[in-house]
Amino acid sequence: MELYEEVLRIAKAAKTVAPRLANLSSTQKDEALLEMAEGLIREMDYLISENQKDLQYAQQKGLSRAMIDRLTLNEKVIRDMAQSLREIASQPDPVGEIVRMWRRPNGLLVGKMRIPLGVIGVIYESRPNVTSDAAGLCLKAGNAVILRGGSEAINSNLAIVKIIQEALKKAHIPQEAVQMIPTTSREAVLHMLKMDEYIDLIIPRGGEELIRFVVENSRIPVIKHYKGVCHIFVDASAHIQMAIEVCFNAKVQRPGVCNAMETLLVHKDIAPRFLPLMAERYREAGVELRGCSRTKEIIPWVKEATEEDWYAEYLDLILAVKIVDNIDEAIEHILKYGSKHTDAIITSDYRNAQRFLREVDSSTVLVNASTRFSDGYQFGLGAEIGISTTKLHAFGPMGAEDLTTTKYIVYGDGQIRT
Amino acid sequence: MELYEEVLRIAKAAKTVAPRLANLSSTQKDEALLEMAEGLIREMDYLISENQKDLQYAQQKGLSRAMIDRLTLNEKVIRDMAQSLREIASQPDPVGEIVRMWRRPNGLLVGKMRIPLGVIGVIYESRPNVTSDAAGLCLKAGNAVILRGGSEAINSNLAIVKIIQEALKKAHIPQEAVQMIPTTSREAVLHMLKMDEYIDLIIPRGGEELIRFVVENSRIPVIKHYKGVCHIFVDASAHIQMAIEVCFNAKVQRPGVCNAMETLLVHKDIAPRFLPLMAERYREAGVELRGCSRTKEIIPWVKEATEEDWYAEYLDLILAVKIVDNIDEAIEHILKYGSKHTDAIITSDYRNAQRFLREVDSSTVLVNASTRFSDGYQFGLGAEIGISTTKLHAFGPMGAEDLTTTKYIVYGDGQIRT
Repeated sequence: MELYEEVLRIAKAAKTVAPRLANLSSTQKDEALLEMAEGLIREMDYLISENQKDLQYAQQKGLSRAMIDRLTLNEKVIRDMAQSLREIASQPDPVGEIVRMWRRPNGLLVGKMRIPLGVIGVIYESRPNVTSDAAGLCLKAGNAVILRGGSEAINSNLAIVKIIQEALKKAHIPQEAVQMIPTTSREAVLHMLKMDEYIDLIIPRGGEELIRFVVENSRIPVIKHYKGVCHIFVDASAHIQMAIEVCFNAKVQRPGVCNAMETLLVHKDIAPRFLPLMAERYREAGVELRGCSRTKEIIPWVKEATEEDWYAEYLDLILAVKIVDNIDEAIEHILKYGSKHTDAIITSDYRNAQRFLREVDSSTVLVNASTRFSDGYQFGLGAEIGISTTKLHAFGPMGAEDLTTTKYIVYGDGQIRT
Repeated sequence: MELYEEVLRIAKAAKTVAPRLANLSSTQKDEALLEMAEGLIREMDYLISENQKDLQYAQQKGLSRAMIDRLTLNEKVIRDMAQSLREIASQPDPVGEIVRMWRRPNGLLVGKMRIPLGVIGVIYESRPNVTSDAAGLCLKAGNAVILRGGSEAINSNLAIVKIIQEALKKAHIPQEAVQMIPTTSREAVLHMLKMDEYIDLIIPRGGEELIRFVVENSRIPVIKHYKGVCHIFVDASAHIQMAIEVCFNAKVQRPGVCNAMETLLVHKDIAPRFLPLMAERYREAGVELRGCSRTKEIIPWVKEATEEDWYAEYLDLILAVKIVDNIDEAIEHILKYGSKHTDAIITSDYRNAQRFLREVDSSTVLVNASTRFSDGYQFGLGAEIGISTTKLHAFGPMGAEDLTTTKYIVYGDGQIRT
């Protein structure tokens, strides 16, 4: 009951302060963002030492190498966090933007003005950089944010929030703009998810298990993605060296993330030339290949893929490979097995490039570029608060603008309806 | 079980046809819309005779005058339905629009392309014009729609859908683009609301009871509004004659709809001059006034308002009246008691106009115009599929564009991430 009261107090404070945040000037918000960035750099030693506590505990608990990697705050990670905040500051203020305005025959001037959503709850796991990314994007969009990070990163997260709140104070912005639930029990999450009177949107970030837990228990709308089963289709006309570099990058550069490639589709006409070279590169990098029967004819050493492989998000150095007859079969495969996250085509054919962009209804579709670019920072949003693979409200990597909505504003001079 | 199979068949057919609808050319869609409009005019006698069956049944059942009014299809109503379809046809196609496109430092060209949502379910009550409005807007936005109208209007709705499907056929568009659940049992609605695998969005239109039923039982996201507690604030500097005309229009022209005014807020400095004239106009029109104590001092014959009156959506010739000290008190009142639907200010003061537009976070905010303009047709959207008073995805009257989302498209020339 005490925990419930604590979460309720935080949620109410966020709701109370939201109208003031909606009306902050752009200058005030950007100054706070720059001050946060400076604070992170200035307090680097403090952040690293707080992070050490989390890392020691993680090692005691025997967390995986990948988990510890995600958890670590070093100079590079902290500089990247600061850089994200600076880029968010440098963007135009979405709040108050008039998206469009038009004149009606009766003289009414009707427009759509961008406004904040209100209070955003972010529930995430081990990455401490989510703390500053989420705080920065929510502030830019005039929203209050309630953060609830994972227990593994609690010391790091509290240290980051402390720096953020000092920056808010300096910029004369209420500290309730960015609050963190100070406990990491699941019960606190459950309380949060029922407070639909005070929280307008929940964004969970983490493994599929966390996200399902949030969706099943939330009375508040949730924007999320479960997984990324990303494809690259190497078309008959692909430039072979480009295809090799892009497909290598998409699988190997960071296999544990949602925008890494999981299935490679290859046009039958290019497969005999492309696949042997590609497979050799993958073999050198320790990538396990699981191919269709036609792939096995060309590369005998690949494992045979099963139906489950086409649905799999390996998040590892494993890749499913399928040879297809044409772009139609490639698009059909993606529509059937994909997760609407990110898919790419490598092609020199103008028409196929345009068809792929139009017909693949994933949140990010690329021509001749690695799926790894599907990311708010890479797209120039400064950071991302999450990726949506459902189409309502937002689709794809979400920046500050995706944390706003529009209202109609109407200028009249006495019009009445007849 | 048979009913379940029937609803499932309809939902699956919609999902199957959705990718084809997403790729229809603008010309094809607009031709179908114009053909629908012509069909409605050509088949006017048939529509009116089918509508007679519904009207006879309504009279037998003793439905209210207002209900029968909403149900009636006459020449004017049918011409308006056709005109809406023509206006929808005349608008630019939202699908395929590139909302924005920018170049990243590494040469990637990143853009956002508008795409349909997929399959929309519309659940509504007595107005048969919703049938053609919803069908027109969904088609324009490249979505399939599943309609489920009220039992009172079943003959009218089936007749309209028949004309729509003939128009689709002429334009070589699959008839599954617009389907109607042919039964009006609540059970069919319950089945629909569980089919989240096939239906992407539910829009309910009708009384609060229907909408709560839909929200409580839906596994599919729902966009809706419960009610419209609309305010007009007559500022100290208001042009008195304009204020009288607008406030009269907003209350009296059609009191039974959600964008009619329910509470009148009056600045204390203008109240002694404005209220006696206004009250007289209302008295002549049979409007019952319920005022705060200061209102009663000026107009002794008004009833005393209770706390509930400030929350009330009368949908009738009743109006709550309150005198406030200044614009701050007016805005506070609206934020506390309002429903985020539609609110207006009557003022000659530039700064107050801008403050009101910015600080009132309702889906439509007007200066010097009647709240009755908060409507998709009046805003130039051709029609509206509904009004949203929640901020996610859409806020305010929803046209074709609100039935789309955007995906990221990326043009590269071999970029990889380092």
